[in-house]
Amino acid sequence: MKFSDKLSKIIDKNKSLLCIGLDPDLMPVEDVLEFNKAIINATCDLVCAYKPNLAFYEAFGSSGLAVLEKTLEHVPTGVPVIADAKRGDIGNTAKAYAGGLFDFFGFDAATVSPYLGYDSVEPFMEYEDRGVFILCRTSNRGATDFQSLCVGEMPLYEAVAIRAREWNVHGNVGLVVGATYPEELKRVRSICPEMCLLIPGIGTQGGDLASAVNYGVDARGEGAIYNVSRQILYASREQDFADAARDMADRIRLQINAHLTR
Amino acid sequence: MKFSDKLSKIIDKNKSLLCIGLDPDLMPVEDVLEFNKAIINATCDLVCAYKPNLAFYEAFGSSGLAVLEKTLEHVPTGVPVIADAKRGDIGNTAKAYAGGLFDFFGFDAATVSPYLGYDSVEPFMEYEDRGVFILCRTSNRGATDFQSLCVGEMPLYEAVAIRAREWNVHGNVGLVVGATYPEELKRVRSICPEMCLLIPGIGTQGGDLASAVNYGVDARGEGAIYNVSRQILYASREQDFADAARDMADRIRLQINAHLTR
Repeated sequence: MKFSDKLSKIIDKNKSLLCIGLDPDLMPVEDVLEFNKAIINATCDLVCAYKPNLAFYEAFGSSGLAVLEKTLEHVPTGVPVIADAKRGDIGNTAKAYAGGLFDFFGFDAATVSPYLGYDSVEPFMEYEDRGVFILCRTSNRGATDFQSLCVGEMPLYEAVAIRAREWNVHGNVGLVVGATYPEELKRVRSICPEMCLLIPGIGTQGGDLASAVNYGVDARGEGAIYNVSRQILYASREQDFADAARDMADRIRLQINAHLTR
Repeated sequence: MKFSDKLSKIIDKNKSLLCIGLDPDLMPVEDVLEFNKAIINATCDLVCAYKPNLAFYEAFGSSGLAVLEKTLEHVPTGVPVIADAKRGDIGNTAKAYAGGLFDFFGFDAATVSPYLGYDSVEPFMEYEDRGVFILCRTSNRGATDFQSLCVGEMPLYEAVAIRAREWNVHGNVGLVVGATYPEELKRVRSICPEMCLLIPGIGTQGGDLASAVNYGVDARGEGAIYNVSRQILYASREQDFADAARDMADRIRLQINAHLTR
């Protein structure tokens, strides 16, 4: 099944555009698998995807990746998992990265960096049933250092959006656009009206939810995935963390839905 | 010891600016460790560094990273190892990547992508004794898609070089510049006369060695690391692969030295 179909199906089923970032950065590696399983058990009927960031697993070397492998096995069929990897390398190497993420780990989608251009993204896009989210306008402070530089008539991130649209011959390309810059999100949505957007930055990072939803979704009120990590994972730091994560996830899910005007 | 000192020391000792890319992409994971060990044993007195690209280990998940861990243990003390990772993520996540590569794996240096700007590179640069190579002008075809776009008076990769120079307060920042574009290499060297350059593209990728050396080294005839992967690793595909790798490595080492005019 194509990533976009799998995504639409779960959005309909769970009435959710919420993605939970499985980024457990505050505990010993031995505890991560049980933590992830508890979070997944508590929230899998409330999300449209999970998104582990590979950094928090690689930090523990091979044991970290073993935990990631077991975490993925625990995600129920039907819930897509996005590898937040932001990979970008030359063709031959990009092919190895894509093979690792899609074939070995079995991720449904991955984030990639555009800096090396077409042949660094192509090996990912060739997996027609997987999603490829190209970094466009990220949610961090340093995003303006290069992404906002003017290339001709437009900032670099718009040039990236335009190229991504051209590259999207299999209909499996999306963009990462932070919620922390609503005007830029609006602009990217207007350049790519039909592409799926992966939107971090509405949780701890403080982006405004109303504009992130109004500007983020496509004409069908879908096509946008709102990622929250720490605000949900660490809603409580006590034994009740899974229940607290569920409550917080449901609250955010409903807040997003309240801004949808379909 | 600072990365630059460790590098100078081994350059002097081995009379070499050659780095071997440990990118074993053509074999089952079970065979990779023995292959790497044989390559390291055969070449460690001829190189100034090794550079495993993480893609070729991650492609096998946790078993791949276990092989990488054991490979690193096998590199003799005094020979720096560069993580070719091209990571680039928001601050919190970049910190996890830097911790993984520098603290867990113990790499002496790492490559990073500039697209997310300062706070994505800062957690790496804060390790003052490690090297941080920021992607500037890469060696692949797609490099022109964004790196060559004009921002104001200059192409994007020059803007990256200028920012990298500004960020280099601890003297541990370098740049990745492909040998396949000699004029761009010359230009970057003139912008950053004292920075260390990591230069891929002289082997299989076909960059011209004379100009890569003339334009790449600093005023001392150092400050440039020439990476070759496949041309050395696969100099022979028979049982004599390690001897063949040694011969090829020595040939390239001497060719580089022949172009040095110190």
